[in-house]
Amino acid sequence: MNFSLDDALPILRSTPAVLRAWLKDLPDSWIRADEGPDTWSPFDIVGHLIHGERTDWMDRVDILLTHGESRPFTPFDRFAQFEASRGKSLGQLLETFAELRAANLHRLESLELRPEDFPRRGRHPELGGVTLGQLLATWVAHDLNHLAQIARVMGRQYTHAVGPWVEYLPMLSGVRR
Amino acid sequence: MNFSLDDALPILRSTPAVLRAWLKDLPDSWIRADEGPDTWSPFDIVGHLIHGERTDWMDRVDILLTHGESRPFTPFDRFAQFEASRGKSLGQLLETFAELRAANLHRLESLELRPEDFPRRGRHPELGGVTLGQLLATWVAHDLNHLAQIARVMGRQYTHAVGPWVEYLPMLSGVRR
Repeated sequence: MNFSLDDALPILRSTPAVLRAWLKDLPDSWIRADEGPDTWSPFDIVGHLIHGERTDWMDRVDILLTHGESRPFTPFDRFAQFEASRGKSLGQLLETFAELRAANLHRLESLELRPEDFPRRGRHPELGGVTLGQLLATWVAHDLNHLAQIARVMGRQYTHAVGPWVEYLPMLSGVRR
Repeated sequence: MNFSLDDALPILRSTPAVLRAWLKDLPDSWIRADEGPDTWSPFDIVGHLIHGERTDWMDRVDILLTHGESRPFTPFDRFAQFEASRGKSLGQLLETFAELRAANLHRLESLELRPEDFPRRGRHPELGGVTLGQLLATWVAHDLNHLAQIARVMGRQYTHAVGPWVEYLPMLSGVRR
């Protein structure tokens, strides 16, 4: 599938509502669960998504459109959420994420990007040359990647509880189909 | 995490709302996308979840509670959705799933199961002896497994569109972290 805004925007719009429907009423036993040391819980992941809205996606769009390849994007702090989320409730994080995402999509739409803009180039600090279309596709894929992660983290809490059914649920044992 | 109804019910309740928030407004380019021959699209997966509500989970609870290990569960048809979903819209499937899930959870709650019921045993046609707690934990994990699958199927449509970022998104290339 090639990148298009018509495909990308509905996914980017839906993620806050998906997270709310999924996590809002869950007990801490799920939202604070992780996969072991140095892995993230659903609570951590929502904080990570917030940090992306604050410092990553639209900032990179702006840098790319303003500076092209002459100025690399600001590196993204993948651990900022541990400090930023401290003392907050998941409900607060979900609301913050929804507000930031809505504001960012409003900004994105106000740019009135056209297909001929997507090959415009910027510079990633590690990956090198990238296009605007690749950046926006990655925003979408990053949402989906973390939704899959939330499902996996929670599912794996039941790896033992499902007993012999673990054989039919490869996600729980780390075996891919 | 040991199985408990207090943990399981909020997940089982949330899945229909998660699917609605996620898929209801997406174009066919996402909901009909799959991962190649003999793989499922989000549309197929919702049909599979419907079939589980109709013929699998609560039927097996009833067989286990009524017959114990003396009568094996009815085998589950993993392909029934291809016929049953034909000609339906995704919106119709989402509503059907929500109604069936709500009715099944109503039935489950009306059983007033207690922790001492969870070790009660039944017989799976392939896996052999299983407990009620394992069956109910599998219902939860099965939901999460298919939510992860939906995220993965959609994310992989952008494996090429993300360009060099694919390196940071192992879900897209089939590499697990």
